[in-house]
Amino acid sequence: MKLSVVAFPSKKLQDLANTYRKRYDSHYAKITPYITLKEAFEADESQLADISNKIKSIAEKYGPLKIHASKISSFFPTTNVIYFKIELTEQLQNIHNDLYHEIDIGKPKHVFIPHITIGRDLTETEHDDIYPQLRMIGINEKEEIDRIHLIYQLEDGSWTTYETYKLTGAL
Amino acid sequence: MKLSVVAFPSKKLQDLANTYRKRYDSHYAKITPYITLKEAFEADESQLADISNKIKSIAEKYGPLKIHASKISSFFPTTNVIYFKIELTEQLQNIHNDLYHEIDIGKPKHVFIPHITIGRDLTETEHDDIYPQLRMIGINEKEEIDRIHLIYQLEDGSWTTYETYKLTGAL
Repeated sequence: MKLSVVAFPSKKLQDLANTYRKRYDSHYAKITPYITLKEAFEADESQLADISNKIKSIAEKYGPLKIHASKISSFFPTTNVIYFKIELTEQLQNIHNDLYHEIDIGKPKHVFIPHITIGRDLTETEHDDIYPQLRMIGINEKEEIDRIHLIYQLEDGSWTTYETYKLTGAL
Repeated sequence: MKLSVVAFPSKKLQDLANTYRKRYDSHYAKITPYITLKEAFEADESQLADISNKIKSIAEKYGPLKIHASKISSFFPTTNVIYFKIELTEQLQNIHNDLYHEIDIGKPKHVFIPHITIGRDLTETEHDDIYPQLRMIGINEKEEIDRIHLIYQLEDGSWTTYETYKLTGAL
């Protein structure tokens, strides 16, 4: 099965992201707005308990994630993904590293750029039309996220939460 | 915010339900297939921690939910909802009662009929067309669900998991 580790921002920030995703994100109906901490990876159902325990240990090391959605940006020309940029902090980088190090399945495909996707699978014309507008509107939201989620994907591409882990540590 | 307590069945059963929901359930994109244990109720964000603690206590009383999806049924003529019927057990009735008793918000609107919705918002003609076919196909799946979820609704109607609770008790 396909798994991933994510942080869901506050309802307020999810609602805001969805006002854009509804129109611009092809995955809008598959999952509510999220920040990926470990990209989707394949694992056998028999490994779930072990993976879950490892995430639990990591979550016990870190305190609530301090996030700052600072601007609207794009991965163009790599992909036509438009996103809320989350400022990279030492805390986010460390928890990301720990997740890859401890759950030794799947290597990072990209440098870690924490973000909330708001547009995806746009044509180049759509992207070039929408992106400058969104960039101008921008975003500036700070908040704390006190838990992370292990999620799994169904055959239709949608995601269900397997477990939540409270961030109860000091880091 | 709007909250609810649900159990997500196995990936296998969710995938099966989605093959129908994709076509017949208007809420298909809002949430993955689920069994409602406490219907949606309004609560203030400040009550979340308290509600969560109460669910945690209940989850510690009960063991994994033994469920049997035994047939495809319909709430017609009350509503045009088609569903996998989950056989009512003492365990399911008790956990449902506890959730209503402990979280003293919102009374049950209906008798508790555990189910997984696979069709909704159908016209009467659609319902009468589809239901006999589905009833004939039927379902017969038994499984154990070892956790329950507190979920909250976003403004667009979709649901995010707030927390998962493992069923670690003996009942």
